[in-house]
Amino acid sequence: IESKLPAVKTTIFSSMSQLAQQHQAINLGQGFPDFDCDPTLIESVHQAMLAGHNQYPPMPGTPVLRQAIATKVSALYHAHYDADSEITITAGATQAIMTSILACVHPGDEVIVIEPAYDSYIPTIQLAGGIPVLVGMRFEDNRFSVDWDLLASKISLKTRCILINSPHNPTGMTFSTADLARLANIVRDTKILLISDEVYEHMVFDGNQHHSVASHAELAQRSFIISSFGKTYHVTGWKVGYVLAPKSLTAEFRKVHQFNVFTVNTPMQVGIAHFMHDHRHHLQLSDFYQEKRDVFRNALANSKFKLLPCDGTYFQCVDYSAISDRSELEFATWLTTEIGVAAIPVSAFYQEQKQNKLVRFCFAKKTETLNAALKRLQQI
Amino acid sequence: IESKLPAVKTTIFSSMSQLAQQHQAINLGQGFPDFDCDPTLIESVHQAMLAGHNQYPPMPGTPVLRQAIATKVSALYHAHYDADSEITITAGATQAIMTSILACVHPGDEVIVIEPAYDSYIPTIQLAGGIPVLVGMRFEDNRFSVDWDLLASKISLKTRCILINSPHNPTGMTFSTADLARLANIVRDTKILLISDEVYEHMVFDGNQHHSVASHAELAQRSFIISSFGKTYHVTGWKVGYVLAPKSLTAEFRKVHQFNVFTVNTPMQVGIAHFMHDHRHHLQLSDFYQEKRDVFRNALANSKFKLLPCDGTYFQCVDYSAISDRSELEFATWLTTEIGVAAIPVSAFYQEQKQNKLVRFCFAKKTETLNAALKRLQQI
Ligand SMILES: CSCCC(=O)C(=O)O
Ligand SMILES: CSCCC(=O)C(=O)O
Repeated sequence: IESKLPAVKTTIFSSMSQLAQQHQAINLGQGFPDFDCDPTLIESVHQAMLAGHNQYPPMPGTPVLRQAIATKVSALYHAHYDADSEITITAGATQAIMTSILACVHPGDEVIVIEPAYDSYIPTIQLAGGIPVLVGMRFEDNRFSVDWDLLASKISLKTRCILINSPHNPTGMTFSTADLARLANIVRDTKILLISDEVYEHMVFDGNQHHSVASHAELAQRSFIISSFGKTYHVTGWKVGYVLAPKSLTAEFRKVHQFNVFTVNTPMQVGIAHFMHDHRHHLQLSDFYQEKRDVFRNALANSKFKLLPCDGTYFQCVDYSAISDRSELEFATWLTTEIGVAAIPVSAFYQEQKQNKLVRFCFAKKTETLNAALKRLQQI
Repeated sequence: IESKLPAVKTTIFSSMSQLAQQHQAINLGQGFPDFDCDPTLIESVHQAMLAGHNQYPPMPGTPVLRQAIATKVSALYHAHYDADSEITITAGATQAIMTSILACVHPGDEVIVIEPAYDSYIPTIQLAGGIPVLVGMRFEDNRFSVDWDLLASKISLKTRCILINSPHNPTGMTFSTADLARLANIVRDTKILLISDEVYEHMVFDGNQHHSVASHAELAQRSFIISSFGKTYHVTGWKVGYVLAPKSLTAEFRKVHQFNVFTVNTPMQVGIAHFMHDHRHHLQLSDFYQEKRDVFRNALANSKFKLLPCDGTYFQCVDYSAISDRSELEFATWLTTEIGVAAIPVSAFYQEQKQNKLVRFCFAKKTETLNAALKRLQQI
């Protein structure tokens, strides 16, 4: 069999998790919490199953969940998405990205991707027959930001869409309103679509707000906006996400969705909807994770690691150049096998091996886990 | 936005279910049971959630579930699939088909599809840039069968794979060992791959066995074999399926899978695995559905409907030519709105409007539901 994706290996997240397990390292690599969700949420799914919500839901998702999302998005971003025709439930955010790209990228189309980029973006574009056009983020004074001029210079007549992600994995960067305004200037008068990955929308720190593309009416009308319950409710294994998009984009999205997965786990959808109705869990999430971020940063403040800013997400990047000359992959491997703390090399988010001497830690862990890991890291 | 799938409408299953609801018709259209699963299965998922199985499982699926599948497949089909490298859990069978096709069909490749065909096959091939090559089933004496000579005549140097489905939706046809032998002759000495949709594997009637491609070693080595728990455990809304494929095919499948959905709902996987371990539910399923089939057939034996054979699946096709000249879609619509029993026109499984005057009923319903529907149908 001739490979469609000859360059693709096992994802770094899986291979690092495996290495962590082999070496009984504390796993701060792959992004997932080591604590459990609210037991009420589990009970809510249990009740949904007992109530018989076990057969196909409507193809775009259970109405009660779509309605709950519409209500949330309206409250937070003052954006009005019609639950019937503008919201679709997906089997997680990764799948929403795949379906968006399959729905809008035609063979030969160019898709702009900002690097470092989540590892699914580029192969997904390739599967659709599209051409990824890479735009490196600016990295100055140990701070990542999007170089909008560079991005604008990469636009061509073949540009079909731009993939954006804020809060940004792995860098922890968040878009300001100025970023959105700049982007709006760039795409105005074009037919370029946006795919906005906002799965960390409820983890924005230091009193700042998440600036969703949904809150920017002009951008929203050309955007697939993607989020997920896995990150927000501490259930990364439940694989329930969603996409917001104006009616015409949603119609195309659903054509692909119905043949990709048809529909998403019913009791999980119903359970999440009821939980959302009774709880405002997402409103406390930024505080919850900011506390963990600060534990992490304070503990490493006087270490040889240099901390990058972390304005959002549950990831902290560090510069290890004062410790080692190793490549990022070698250093992350060494951390995992020798120090006993797994991390992700930031180079894994680049097509070409970029070497900024950075690794990413996930701080979505119990305080004990963080303290145990930090103790090991402080000894370096 | 320029559509990638301009011909695609809402699936007939969704639109008929909606029409049924509007007219309070008894829904024998879309294939799903109106009874619930074993409560032990629900409890098993509940326990998995309580035990903390709520984060990402390994990308190819939870090991305990892959092992349970390997054990089942070995017992039933004497086929040995390695749980680590030859079995992958998917978000349902539709998704396994999408991922298989994306993994092996290159732009310009031809894919042979036997019609009538499940509605996802053709658009999925088109999304991969492939060219569907349609082979109509033989329909003689009100019985459908595959015309292997016709199929063989459609093979070209560009044929990348053949999609097969037994037990067959919508016709209820099942493959004999002669069918598999014939297919093996056709593909021998070619590099053609097979995608075998076997989601109704545990619904084969009259003392016959399901002849899985897995049981045919020569075919199995070139096949993606797809099944699902939704149909087998009466939980169509849970969206957990799987694919069996030799190592090299599985490797390519997983490259796409990891970027399509990454992984599948953890507590559902764990819950199903434990349930499979303790129960042999699937071994009783054929008897369970045969009884329903017979209720259905006996009640219509003296009606104006002519019953087609039903050797497997939970679908019964009937010829209504003695009742009406209407097109299949019109007749199914009339049945739904005027008689109060929703059905699916078999023409919906053809690209070109074939008109054999057939509609499909789903008999995966409680006895009361079936009796109520049959009473209405008998009055025609
Ligand atoms: C899909 S596994 C990776 C989880 C994640 O988003 C990350 O670690 O970046
Ligand atoms: C995915 S909805 C359709 C269910 C089904 O397989 C059928 O009715 O044929």
